[in-house]
Amino acid sequence: MAETKVTPWEVSGKVDYDKLTKQFGTKIINDDLRRRLARLASEQNILLERGVYFSHRDLDLILADHESKKGFFLYTGRGPSGPMHIGHLLPMVFTKWLQDRFGVNLYVQITDDEKFLLNRERELADVDKIANDNILDIAALGFDPNKTFIFKDTQYMRNMYPIALRVARQINLSQVRATFGFESSTNVGMAFFPAIEIIPTMFEKKRCLIPAAIDQDPFWRLQRDIAEGLGFHKAAQIHGKFLPPLTGAEGKMSASQPETAIYLSDDPKTVRNKIMKYAFSGGQESIELHRKLGGNINVDVSYAWLRDFFEQDPKKLKKIGQDYTSGKMLTGELKGILVDKVNSFLEQHRANREKAKEHVDSFMHGGALAQRMWKTVHN
Amino acid sequence: MAETKVTPWEVSGKVDYDKLTKQFGTKIINDDLRRRLARLASEQNILLERGVYFSHRDLDLILADHESKKGFFLYTGRGPSGPMHIGHLLPMVFTKWLQDRFGVNLYVQITDDEKFLLNRERELADVDKIANDNILDIAALGFDPNKTFIFKDTQYMRNMYPIALRVARQINLSQVRATFGFESSTNVGMAFFPAIEIIPTMFEKKRCLIPAAIDQDPFWRLQRDIAEGLGFHKAAQIHGKFLPPLTGAEGKMSASQPETAIYLSDDPKTVRNKIMKYAFSGGQESIELHRKLGGNINVDVSYAWLRDFFEQDPKKLKKIGQDYTSGKMLTGELKGILVDKVNSFLEQHRANREKAKEHVDSFMHGGALAQRMWKTVHN
Repeated sequence: MAETKVTPWEVSGKVDYDKLTKQFGTKIINDDLRRRLARLASEQNILLERGVYFSHRDLDLILADHESKKGFFLYTGRGPSGPMHIGHLLPMVFTKWLQDRFGVNLYVQITDDEKFLLNRERELADVDKIANDNILDIAALGFDPNKTFIFKDTQYMRNMYPIALRVARQINLSQVRATFGFESSTNVGMAFFPAIEIIPTMFEKKRCLIPAAIDQDPFWRLQRDIAEGLGFHKAAQIHGKFLPPLTGAEGKMSASQPETAIYLSDDPKTVRNKIMKYAFSGGQESIELHRKLGGNINVDVSYAWLRDFFEQDPKKLKKIGQDYTSGKMLTGELKGILVDKVNSFLEQHRANREKAKEHVDSFMHGGALAQRMWKTVHN
Repeated sequence: MAETKVTPWEVSGKVDYDKLTKQFGTKIINDDLRRRLARLASEQNILLERGVYFSHRDLDLILADHESKKGFFLYTGRGPSGPMHIGHLLPMVFTKWLQDRFGVNLYVQITDDEKFLLNRERELADVDKIANDNILDIAALGFDPNKTFIFKDTQYMRNMYPIALRVARQINLSQVRATFGFESSTNVGMAFFPAIEIIPTMFEKKRCLIPAAIDQDPFWRLQRDIAEGLGFHKAAQIHGKFLPPLTGAEGKMSASQPETAIYLSDDPKTVRNKIMKYAFSGGQESIELHRKLGGNINVDVSYAWLRDFFEQDPKKLKKIGQDYTSGKMLTGELKGILVDKVNSFLEQHRANREKAKEHVDSFMHGGALAQRMWKTVHN
């Protein structure tokens, strides 16, 4: 097994989430907190109930701020390195649920600067094309047009540079080396970039909640070191696990290995082929053996995808799990269920994406929050 | 004698300019080049004739570009760390002469970001106040309102961020450590800043000539490493010596030691007191000895100031030198000549500064070049 590595720019090996929470110093979301969140949201969310969003910092304080009417705001982001796959969409779907249930402002940072800096082969125009494409996928989820601001760093830096300087002045080279593993060969743009990713946590004086995959945590540790000194709250987080790559439980879906991921643009036939061909199976080697021994849902990726996101109905999921474990359901059947679920999700997503072309401007410029943000210089 | 140190942020000890040119790899401006520049400018300039501007890179190529009608542009800057003294004004005066004689565009970068990042005690508002004050002193020199753009980094970053990313991606942490002596405790804003100071050399596709004191040279060495790879010319420089501090030949005038400098805001009485009290003298201990042995113009700071800038007439300067060396002129008389020269210069400067309040906007927003720049996003 490959060595496990979890940084904002690389996830490889088998991710041990319990170990990560200890290493990063985050807290597991316990039953009490999960119930309290569901009560205040007046709704359960399967990403929480099934442990995809499993860890946090200060989520209890966020809920207290909500209860006391102080309120809070949401911040998440996307690094436009290529077309989005289903794993990229999960934090956005979860964020959308939080915005719906709590009626709060949401900031979505598109780190086009970061993705340009990371790869010397990329042109700004290429990154911009990807960014615009990603923004449509995000806009398709239907956030509140007057409470959501989606921005590209290269464009919004005009309003952020003063506060970027304030943040950057508090972070030294020793810290970014220790936190992100930066080396002598790291370019000075990347050394500066952590300041940029931290800024949106300071867009409001309220407490900020960040739903994101746990690999982004180093940025928030740094934020929590410096925020109060600059007159802002330490950012709260709710950390997600990665939807496993089709090919197995290690690492995360990767743009450089198309067989590991289902892209939002994959057509029904491609989805079927990828899942049938690549989805790592917990089934037995032959039908006879499978009928006799049953499948292993602990390693089966199709089952994991149904559990983590695609089968919202707990009764149906339970039945699938039982049937597969008992050998009643064959791998082909299990995969078939996932194929249908994914294709129906993507069909709906693509319809929403088409519609989003008409209203994406409200998130970026025209909506109430976007208009206010373009008039604000942050310092 | 203190150890000599010349970096963009610290100049101490006795500066050995010959050694610096070797260390930095620049060329001494020889007689041929000086005469060629004067011929093309149709005028001599005492800062050149008397060796204050003494070193260069690619000045010959700049002149060739002028002769072949390709043209060139000028770039210089100011770090707004405090009120400006006479030493700060010299590069600006020289730059103004170059613009007048060659009719070229000039960009003046006010590095308010740098000065904020350098000092954790400073607020952005404080730096901004200083910046605006400095800009008036610069505007007072009367640059061409339609060919000059003066900008603060904090404001103009909105148009520079894309190219800042392109530049930053080419510079790694190892290079800024080697070039600027950055350490683990250096903040990530300062690590990024060299990219910002390099950007204006890429404002046009023509060759850029930078008149500046030689302490800024590390930025240009870095620029010359990366410019051609980004599709721009290596920047040309013309390097100035420091006007010596009143107190002697070591280091440069320092804001933290007011007795070392004459500020542009010093009133006539203050100027007289400072020069009489602090200007390091090459005179003898008593009038009798002085009449007998004469003064030493090689160490006398009043004489150096007259030579470097304030006595434009070569005949008068020669006579002063002879009379002082022979003992005919006493230290008090020499200082008196300088006091009158400085006060008359400052009186004119302050009148120009008042007038500049009315036309400073043309450099920053309203002039032809400024208007074009605010419409340009550099990438």
